[in-house]
Amino acid sequence: MTHLATLAINTIRTLSIDAIQKANSGHPGLPLGCAPMAYALWQGHLRHDPAHPQWPNRDRFVLSAGHGSMLLYSLLHLTGYAVSLDDLKAFRQWGSKTPGHPEWHLTPGVEATTGPLGQGAANAVGMAMAETFLARQWNRPGHTVIDHFTYALVSDGDVMEGVAYEAASLAGHLGLGKLIYLYDANQVTLDGPLSLIMSEDVGARFAACGWHVQHVEDGDRDLDALDRALTAAKAETARPSILVIRTTIGFGSPKKAGTAAAHGSPLGEAEVAATKLALGWDPAASFHIPAEVAAHLDARGRGGAQRQAWQATVDAWRVAYPDLAADFDRCMAGELPAAWDSTLPQWAQGSAAQATRVSSGKVLTALAAAVSNLWGGDADLGGSTKTIVPGGDYSPAGGGRNVRFGIREHAMGSIANGMLYHGGVRPFVSTFFVFSDYMRPAIRLAALNGQPAIYVLTHDSVGLGEDGPTHQPVEHLMALRAMPNLAVVRPADANETVAAWRLAMTRSDGPTVLVLSRQDLPVLTHPGAKGAERGAYVLADGTDALVIATGSEVSLAMEARELLAQRGISTRVVSMPCWEVFRAQDADYRASVLPPSITARVSVEAGVTLGWTEWIGAGVAIGIDRFGASAPGEELMANLGITARAVADAVERLRAQR
Amino acid sequence: MTHLATLAINTIRTLSIDAIQKANSGHPGLPLGCAPMAYALWQGHLRHDPAHPQWPNRDRFVLSAGHGSMLLYSLLHLTGYAVSLDDLKAFRQWGSKTPGHPEWHLTPGVEATTGPLGQGAANAVGMAMAETFLARQWNRPGHTVIDHFTYALVSDGDVMEGVAYEAASLAGHLGLGKLIYLYDANQVTLDGPLSLIMSEDVGARFAACGWHVQHVEDGDRDLDALDRALTAAKAETARPSILVIRTTIGFGSPKKAGTAAAHGSPLGEAEVAATKLALGWDPAASFHIPAEVAAHLDARGRGGAQRQAWQATVDAWRVAYPDLAADFDRCMAGELPAAWDSTLPQWAQGSAAQATRVSSGKVLTALAAAVSNLWGGDADLGGSTKTIVPGGDYSPAGGGRNVRFGIREHAMGSIANGMLYHGGVRPFVSTFFVFSDYMRPAIRLAALNGQPAIYVLTHDSVGLGEDGPTHQPVEHLMALRAMPNLAVVRPADANETVAAWRLAMTRSDGPTVLVLSRQDLPVLTHPGAKGAERGAYVLADGTDALVIATGSEVSLAMEARELLAQRGISTRVVSMPCWEVFRAQDADYRASVLPPSITARVSVEAGVTLGWTEWIGAGVAIGIDRFGASAPGEELMANLGITARAVADAVERLRAQR
Repeated sequence: MTHLATLAINTIRTLSIDAIQKANSGHPGLPLGCAPMAYALWQGHLRHDPAHPQWPNRDRFVLSAGHGSMLLYSLLHLTGYAVSLDDLKAFRQWGSKTPGHPEWHLTPGVEATTGPLGQGAANAVGMAMAETFLARQWNRPGHTVIDHFTYALVSDGDVMEGVAYEAASLAGHLGLGKLIYLYDANQVTLDGPLSLIMSEDVGARFAACGWHVQHVEDGDRDLDALDRALTAAKAETARPSILVIRTTIGFGSPKKAGTAAAHGSPLGEAEVAATKLALGWDPAASFHIPAEVAAHLDARGRGGAQRQAWQATVDAWRVAYPDLAADFDRCMAGELPAAWDSTLPQWAQGSAAQATRVSSGKVLTALAAAVSNLWGGDADLGGSTKTIVPGGDYSPAGGGRNVRFGIREHAMGSIANGMLYHGGVRPFVSTFFVFSDYMRPAIRLAALNGQPAIYVLTHDSVGLGEDGPTHQPVEHLMALRAMPNLAVVRPADANETVAAWRLAMTRSDGPTVLVLSRQDLPVLTHPGAKGAERGAYVLADGTDALVIATGSEVSLAMEARELLAQRGISTRVVSMPCWEVFRAQDADYRASVLPPSITARVSVEAGVTLGWTEWIGAGVAIGIDRFGASAPGEELMANLGITARAVADAVERLRAQR
Repeated sequence: MTHLATLAINTIRTLSIDAIQKANSGHPGLPLGCAPMAYALWQGHLRHDPAHPQWPNRDRFVLSAGHGSMLLYSLLHLTGYAVSLDDLKAFRQWGSKTPGHPEWHLTPGVEATTGPLGQGAANAVGMAMAETFLARQWNRPGHTVIDHFTYALVSDGDVMEGVAYEAASLAGHLGLGKLIYLYDANQVTLDGPLSLIMSEDVGARFAACGWHVQHVEDGDRDLDALDRALTAAKAETARPSILVIRTTIGFGSPKKAGTAAAHGSPLGEAEVAATKLALGWDPAASFHIPAEVAAHLDARGRGGAQRQAWQATVDAWRVAYPDLAADFDRCMAGELPAAWDSTLPQWAQGSAAQATRVSSGKVLTALAAAVSNLWGGDADLGGSTKTIVPGGDYSPAGGGRNVRFGIREHAMGSIANGMLYHGGVRPFVSTFFVFSDYMRPAIRLAALNGQPAIYVLTHDSVGLGEDGPTHQPVEHLMALRAMPNLAVVRPADANETVAAWRLAMTRSDGPTVLVLSRQDLPVLTHPGAKGAERGAYVLADGTDALVIATGSEVSLAMEARELLAQRGISTRVVSMPCWEVFRAQDADYRASVLPPSITARVSVEAGVTLGWTEWIGAGVAIGIDRFGASAPGEELMANLGITARAVADAVERLRAQR
């Protein structure tokens, strides 16, 4: 190791422990242990331009072990990103760019929001997939527009998480040759030595999943070995690569190195000083950056040159392929093409009943034809969720549109997030609604990041029937409505399904869940389903009572309206496909849909009733506050009290109470 | 294969496809393909007594691939369980014992509720762990009370799920020698050939995780190979075993065998007939059981003898170890010991502030000393969740009480379910509250089964501070309250934490989530926290307004009460640690806590406000309808509006509106 390299690595280390000590909160062990591999990668291989963090063809670097965030912030500062020394000093403080775990939407150069273990490892798979997809879309002979690597630094904790296994299994299956994991095998976790909780041969496991596996025995000191392994990983084009790098957590800390004590708490003033001394650093110097290190690590020069060379390629390509360039500009801006929605299907009111999953499939087919970068797939249920888009199955070399994620719901969600982090693509994913639980942690991160992921979730209630309660969502609508910044849309019929997809496609600042029926539903609305895009609207007017319903229960509300008319009660039916969008409407509109004057209010939804008081006040919520059962769907609905008669009776009771 | 074996296997097959065809719903592929391995196991190895399905020392058999439920129901009927031919004919119908996916609480002989893929594989790990734990508790030289195998039939879909990987990794680490997977490697999933979605070497992956791996090349025909592999698996005592068994999905179906068409839909009348013909069956015979097969498969004779031999062992042990026998009786009955709660800690009102996670740790230590079968652990956060119980770490041979599940939250939840399915133990698991999302599918199954799992979830709000929004629960309280049959308890202080544990320990028909603070909270209540066990109670009385709070916000409500007193407003503060328990109280009690006469109502909880209208009507819900941020906890609470002043101001505004 050269003197300058040592100095640079120790600068990364000491900056990190200084910031953690100042915050009196954070995880020093990883930055101390991973600084050498980070130096080897960032200085010797990573192609990026800190002055242009959004350069589309940059290599991606994901710190999956997000608790080691100070490693990343130190690197960002030292290589020239808009992360200042003051930002480092504001680590973990209100309003700073340097939160406890990296947040994609806050900090230039942060490629992914990580911290919940395993997520970043899966995000990186999504980024590598997006790279291949866009390369196939845009690259032409002699014109290489997209061609970059995706690196992820993963920890013992990351590789232990099921989501990371799922993602690795898919990456190996697909043969994502430009995906490279640096696995920090420090053999220590928060509570103690790794041997307390894991004894598998991780390298052999990745090899079994089709990965190219290399071992670096001394990740603390052997920069040459790190460099060679990175070079070999880049040279392997048919398989993803993992470098199993043995390191010492908390390297340099005399009392805590190699132990869990270095993992999750600041070292303490005295141990910070002792560590600096051990690293040959001035123990009295704080946030010290030697001038030669500043010059050495600044990546703006070479990064700018790399970016400009790429820009020249792109300029030539723009001339040769103006249509592709226009597509590139649109996709990278996250915009929809003009007339993207001109071919969406529509259905005449009263036309043949149709499951909303089927309507959704038809919408998706139209959208896929119009929107080149709409891209996604399913967790082995595409035949049931109706999400298989034309154009063949995706493969890294083949470029198809339909992604077969396998029976890996959690990774599917996290991979979609990775695609969105990459940029340029508009992913959707699908499975049964009940399995949204399996990918909930990934949905949460999309919502937290304000990423417009689209989840197509079908078989949305006990109406799915015989598969029984393990497959019947009951609490899922409300559990997802509880999540900030998530739009949950449950359309009532084919035309509302078109409106639901419109909402999803035009949403730019957060994810959308489309909740769709297995069973056929009558077409209640006119083409366009006017009003659905405002979250709730009056489907049929009335003056005495109000019934609010979503999805498959809207037709039942309409039947109840008929029953009530026979009883002399005039009932307004409100279809409310999306609470979040309706809440965002102005007060006048909301009051026009739900007039305060109509207090006899009943809601009906085939799910838990928690939360409905927001709309019905002291009215009656008809729902299912228990788990379902295995039986034909219509029978279930009837046996669980989700009937037009129950709605009508509830309205009548409320009227009688007045 | 003998003629009788062939006949028996084909009986299992034809019963299964007949029931599926009658229901016109179900999955015929697995029963047709797995009947040989099931026959080899159930006829040659499985120790069970169909007349006594609760025999504690029976071998456990988990059908992780729950969609193949008819295989299991056919076996249960044929071996002599209380599952009649009429039950088979009622497959997937309302009120039947034979739902679409096996449900533990419904059907004698069904050991686990399976269907969401991966769960059963992880449940089996929990069963195998429980077996070793109880063996260590009760077995004595010359007296072997607990000594059985746990088998799971797992599918391609199961092994692809992250939860199953996590569980397998832990099983390998622990060396669970009596755990045996039969992996139905039929290489077909719902949407098509497995090669579309997976290409890993599953056997090699399990070997990397420390498993004993055997391959059976012809699982359709080679009963001898199946038998040999099962014998070898049982002989391997240091490692769990997996048999990778190559089978043909839909075996026997002329048109559908080996294809996805056999997976998830009935074969159709014509193909059922053609399959029967191909199997040498009378195509006109329906639900036909040859007499010699009925006699051959009935396991009541040999199972009864096995059970009686065991009973003799137990009788001798009872004499030699009456204390152990008493413990056995109590544990198997799912009861608590007398005076289980006599040593619980208590705190004087006003004593030093303490995080409820710390109080919980002290309660748990007392409980562990009193309740021999309380047993559990954490996902590498035991030092933070304060759940490390005395007595050392669990290992199969060592018998310790503290389970180190590793960074495997999802498997941890599913393994706890497996422990409960096994019986005899009372498991708890712990992690940060935000990671409840990772194990949500397992929590759901505990709720669905009515199993009394205990989840100790700490770091329960933005109050945890610097770790930032990825680690800060916001929506989790409400998302869990949405789940049927789950008790969510968020105590306000040390004494309420004792009450919360009391609720959890005495609950027998469903799981309990304990939601605990990272930060210190004042001791507001007297020892016993009278009222907390009724879900909500009046902590401080008042007549003009009502403030309802949970957990860390109760002390803030008390501060608001002081502020309001200074403004001349008399405020009642209600602590509401558990909505579900409060809802279950009688109407008089509920009205005594929340008198209809007090309409100026404010709620305060550091989480989303959705749902609070149930208690406050047209009042004000103070909460956090966004994601958190990285900053010190107190600063965050203040910046996000969770303050005593905000509560007091809201009350004052409401009073002014009147």
